[in-house]
Order: sequence, then C-alpha cells, then structure tokens
Amino acid sequence: MAKIAVLGYGTVGSGVVEVLETNKDSIKKRAGKEIEVKKVLDLRDFPGDPIQEKIVHDIKEIIEDEEIEVVVEVMGGVEPAFTFVKQALEAGKSVCTSNKALVAAHGAELLEIAKSKSLNFMFEASVGGGIPIIRPLNQSLTADEITKITGILNGTTNYILTKMSREGSDYDETLKEAQKLGYAERNPEADVEGFDACRKIAILTSLAYGSTVNFEDIRCEGISNITTVEFKYAEALGCAVKLLATSYRKDGKVYAITAPFMISNEHPLYNVNDVLNGIFINGNVIGNVMFFGAGAGKLPTASAVVADVVDCVKHKGKNVMTVWSSEKLSLGDADDEVWRFFARVKDEDDARVKVRDAFAEAKIVEIAETSGEFGIVTEAMSEAEFKAKTEGLNLINRLRIDDTQL
Amino acid sequence: MAKIAVLGYGTVGSGVVEVLETNKDSIKKRAGKEIEVKKVLDLRDFPGDPIQEKIVHDIKEIIEDEEIEVVVEVMGGVEPAFTFVKQALEAGKSVCTSNKALVAAHGAELLEIAKSKSLNFMFEASVGGGIPIIRPLNQSLTADEITKITGILNGTTNYILTKMSREGSDYDETLKEAQKLGYAERNPEADVEGFDACRKIAILTSLAYGSTVNFEDIRCEGISNITTVEFKYAEALGCAVKLLATSYRKDGKVYAITAPFMISNEHPLYNVNDVLNGIFINGNVIGNVMFFGAGAGKLPTASAVVADVVDCVKHKGKNVMTVWSSEKLSLGDADDEVWRFFARVKDEDDARVKVRDAFAEAKIVEIAETSGEFGIVTEAMSEAEFKAKTEGLNLINRLRIDDTQL
Repeated sequence: MAKIAVLGYGTVGSGVVEVLETNKDSIKKRAGKEIEVKKVLDLRDFPGDPIQEKIVHDIKEIIEDEEIEVVVEVMGGVEPAFTFVKQALEAGKSVCTSNKALVAAHGAELLEIAKSKSLNFMFEASVGGGIPIIRPLNQSLTADEITKITGILNGTTNYILTKMSREGSDYDETLKEAQKLGYAERNPEADVEGFDACRKIAILTSLAYGSTVNFEDIRCEGISNITTVEFKYAEALGCAVKLLATSYRKDGKVYAITAPFMISNEHPLYNVNDVLNGIFINGNVIGNVMFFGAGAGKLPTASAVVADVVDCVKHKGKNVMTVWSSEKLSLGDADDEVWRFFARVKDEDDARVKVRDAFAEAKIVEIAETSGEFGIVTEAMSEAEFKAKTEGLNLINRLRIDDTQL
Repeated sequence: MAKIAVLGYGTVGSGVVEVLETNKDSIKKRAGKEIEVKKVLDLRDFPGDPIQEKIVHDIKEIIEDEEIEVVVEVMGGVEPAFTFVKQALEAGKSVCTSNKALVAAHGAELLEIAKSKSLNFMFEASVGGGIPIIRPLNQSLTADEITKITGILNGTTNYILTKMSREGSDYDETLKEAQKLGYAERNPEADVEGFDACRKIAILTSLAYGSTVNFEDIRCEGISNITTVEFKYAEALGCAVKLLATSYRKDGKVYAITAPFMISNEHPLYNVNDVLNGIFINGNVIGNVMFFGAGAGKLPTASAVVADVVDCVKHKGKNVMTVWSSEKLSLGDADDEVWRFFARVKDEDDARVKVRDAFAEAKIVEIAETSGEFGIVTEAMSEAEFKAKTEGLNLINRLRIDDTQL
C-alpha cells in the first residue's frame, strides 16, 4: 500500500481522487501496489463528501506524516505551492504536480532537490493536460537532438479561435461564451494573452535542451486583437489562425515565441480544433512526431497526474533522471526570427506603391468583406526586417505564418 | 561507459550505429554515460566500413562478453532472434529490439525472464517505428483503463492506399512502384495481407490489457483485393480507405481486427497519409489521445531503439515494470463485432429488391464510373448479421466502416 496526499481539492484534485477510485484495480496492477489517498489539504471543508474525513488545513500534517510517500500538488500558482512542494521533497516525499506556473518558475530547482534525495518530481500534467508529452520528451526522444517543438498548448484560446473561425463570431462575444461554459476563467488574461502557452513552451524547451528557459524571455503575443476580419483573410488564404507556442534550434541558437499564427491546411496542427491540444516535435533522427488529445479538463489532467503517481510509486528510492539544469538558456534574439508575414494594411495615400517598393514578392490579398484596407503576404524575412519595411505603412494588424509541414 | 552489441547490421542496425555516433554528446547526457558499440553480429563482413573491426560471426562472442550490458536485436524474424535474445537475457544483458515478430510471438516470456533477472526487455521500435507508443502505453497511460486502440500501423500499405486514392492507380501497379522505391519488400505478403499490422495490434493489445493476445487469433484481412473502384465509392462517400488495426473492450470482452476500413474525414486517422503511422487511443479517464509520425525507416526506427538503449543504461539493475503476462487473453468472437458496412453488389436479378428487404436503412450509392453494380452502406450490425443478410446477394467486395471520432 502506498499512501499519498493531495494538496488542493479543486477540479484537478477531486479528479485525482476520482480516478484513483474508478480505476483502483488496474492502477494497483500498474503500480505494483494499492494507492490510497490518506490526506487532502484544502482551506475549505467538504461536509458530506467522502473525502471530508481526510481533509486537513495545515500542510504540516502532511509534511510530518511519515506514511505519506507521494504528494500531489494541484493547487496552482507559484505560492504557496512552491514552499509546500519544497518542504515535501525535503521531508523525503516524491511530488507530482499539474502546476505549470510552479514548474516554469522552479522546475530545475525542484528536480535537483528530488535528485539529491533519490526522489522524483514529476509534472506530466503541467503541459498538454492528459497528453503524454513530458515523459516522451524525457524518456522516449532521448536518442534525438530536438530541432523544433510547435504546439497548440492552450485549450481556452484554441476553443475561442475555432469558434470564431467556424461561426464568424467576434472575440468578445466568443470569450464570454467560453467563460459561461467554463472553458475560460473570469480573469482570462493568462490564457488569452498567451502566458499559459508561453509557460508551457518554456517547460518543453527547457526539457528539450536541458537548461532553463525563463518564460519571461519568450516573446509572447495573445489573441485579444484577433477579429473576424483576420479570419476572413485566413479563409481566403486557405489558412487557420492558431495560437502557437514554438521553439526551435537554428545555427546553434534556440529561439522561442508564443503568438497567433496563420497556418495552412498542410500544417500538422491545422486540424487541432476546439479545446484539443496538439504538439509537433521534430528530432534530428526521428523526424516528425505529433501528439494530440485533450489539453485540459478534470479527468484528462487527473489521468496524467495519477500516471505520475504510479511512476513515483514504481520508482520509490530511485530518481528517474531528467536533464534540466538551473543553468539559464539564452534565447536567440526574437527580432532575428524569420517568417512569412500576413498584414492588414490601411489603403491610404500611396500604401500600395509603398508595399510594391518595400517587398519584392509580397502577395496582395483582397477580400470582399472589408473596405479601406488590403492584406499582404510577404516572402520570408526576419522580424526586424519586416518592421523596417513596414515603417511607412499603416498596419492594422499582422500575423506570422508558420510553414511547418509533416 | 556502457558497452553494447548489435545483432544484425542491416538497415536498422546500421541506423543504430549511426544515431549513436551522430548524437553521441546528447545521448551521453541523457544516459548519464557514454554508450559504445563494442560488437556487431552479422553473417557478412563489411570491408571498408568502420564497423568491420567490431564484426563477429558467432553469437557466443557477445553472450560471453561480460563487458556488454545491453544487446540490440535488429535481425528480424522469430529465429534465431528468439534464441539469441533469450541467451542474452540469461547471461545478464538487457535487450532492446525492433522485431515485432519476436515480440508478438514471445513478448511475455522474454519480459518475465528480464524481470526475474532485474534486467529490461524493451521494444519501443516494434510498433510505430519512431513514434513513442510502447512507453506511453506502458508508463503514461497507467491511470487509465484502455477502451480502444485504433492504428494505421503499416507504412507500406498506407503508402499504397494513399497513392491509389490520389492517383487513381491500380493495386498491382502501385505495389510495384512501392517495391521499386523500397517501401515494399520483394515478397510483400506480410505487409499487404495485414500480418505486420496484426502483429503490432497484438502487441499493443497485450500491453493494454496485461495478458497475451495471439496475433493468429485476430481476424486479419489485407488490402490486395482493393481496386480503383472501392476508391471511387469512397470518394463519393467522403471517405478514405485505410488499413486499420484495432482492438477495443465492450461488455467486458476484448475484440480485435485488422482489415481495410472506410473512414470519414472526421475520423482521427483520416489525414494519416503516405508512409506515416498514426495511433489513436481512448482511455476511460484520459479520453482520446493520438500519436503520429514516421512508422518505419532507418533513422526513425533507430531513434526508438537507441531511446530504449538509453533507458536500459539508466535503469541498470532495475526492471522497469511492464504488465504483460503469459496468460492468454481470449478475444471476443469476431462475428459479434458491430460495424456499418459498405458493399459492392452485382446489379443482377432482383438485387435491389433483396437489399431493400434485408436492410431497413441501407443507403444505395451509385457512381458514374461503373456499371452492372451498385454500392450500399448499411446501418450498424454484427458481422454475423451482415453475412446472413447478404447471403442471397452477389457481393463483389465489402469494407467495414469505422466511426471513431475525436
């Protein structure tokens, strides 16, 4: 029997308890022993809930309980999660978390503490919800040097973009509906401004290259300025608009960005719709692989957390090596990144002449639904070059185009 | 330094040697130590090849070499691979293999020997080439009860079907071209009759349910009777024709089948084309996840083999538990499987009346390109029921329709 504690009895926490109960027998078979939730930390009480008798309000009751060998942290946020997780590791307990803010901010440090004590710190659920991606990156793609990771890593924004695309609805209206359905939070900033996806690509990039990428160093643009008009242009171009979080290695440097992109129907993530997440990886020997599935949600996320618990139980006393040092990975200059660009240009003065002068091969895109503007699709150039070339133009918006193909 | 031996210096074997050299530094980081190929077993010599000095012709030189801790078996076929692998395990060496025939025939037995000696027997490359699927199933989806696995698991047939669909070319011609390009073997039977995919679904099903599925027990139909006409009907129905290998649990029984299916453009595997493989998994808590990438090829396969070698080196002295017992899993009766069916019916006598009488809701499909026949798409029914209902009809061909959706 392995006893565990759960920090936080919210959506994911109650999912973890539920999954452990629902699949008790098969989990026992996989872990080699039964797994029992002994204590649950939450500020609230849950009268009537079978978990009530296990509720504790003080982290000490868990840290000081020597029977508890694995702690599941599903509270979210950096603090007090970080303090609790550190205490748990220092008290000799392995930790599994779904908390990307915690992992993005302190992943390397917590991995090092775990390693030094022959414990494990696991965080499969922190990226891609239920989709196995951390473990494949950490244990399956070990023969490869990762050259590119591109993902749709945030279900909320993908839901919004998919709905806007399908129904022609506008951003504010769609966001409100997503909030009503529970797909977006009341304060949606972390999702819609791209911060959530950005933290996740920081985690994946750190794992891929073995040193720490600060998510604050990654250029990050959200979807809040995407309107119905961008979708009209996208449709005319045979493209979808997707919030991509991507990192890649080029000339010995690693670049990363999170931003809305136009992608063609040949792009591996073109069909990843609604709240689904998809992650494309290119390795120098494996070539292209892709993973997709539910990127969030109570049970898919709990599935990933419980799989980590099973792994911790199986590896008791043995650290499963993860190559992610605290050493900082300096990213290449975002202004050097090269893309094709789509831009909406105000059709004023001699804008069309300026476009012809600045861009040798820009394609002009006209759509019936707008007036006073036109679209351009440029040849590939650096961000800096694009900025310079469009200086004299009045741009309404611009999107990068990602040309990844399977 | 970890020393390994490679059995078979063919496509995959030379790929393994190449990957270990190309990514030497990153592999060292991941494995925690350098990995060196000490010996290579092959009947041939390779004068001029840097590997020549490592070539041995007698398996004994590897089995009796105490420095060698991991043996890579990439010869293919059940014998002598089985004998060699067993000897290696019994001599205290972990084994990694890409050999699905070996794994399908003796997986459970070899896993048990490995476990009893605190070694590992790994076979990530035996299914899906480079796509991480064995390890995710074994280590990531441990919180789930697997309810369905559906895969395009054979690159050769997927290449042929994709090409026939795109170019309207016929089967024999396309097969010949695939052989010319090296995508199909001179004796293509194992691929085109579905045996290869069938072995792979047997392996995945055994891992998913923890006991042994004999691939001989799985109903298996190949693609050699698919003609340009089936593709015309598929097009009219908005479907693709794909060789699916699938297993699922229903009412406490596990069913499995390998056969060409029609799938709509909402099917998760609809866009898996050419030599790509795709694997869809449904778990009772994770919901749907999908993996895809190169299902074969020298370097992708070698990538998976080397990842296993890294895992064996990292887990020296510790068996990574795999739940797959020798106990036989009795499959449900294939005649009880329920599908919608597509059939080509000879338009003779009172065929149309018979169809109307036998099927309450069958849809008739007519295409311009044929005469003397018509197509039907039935409602969902068991294989037995379909057989009974079509007894008086002259069927030219019939395909099942898989309605899996993401």
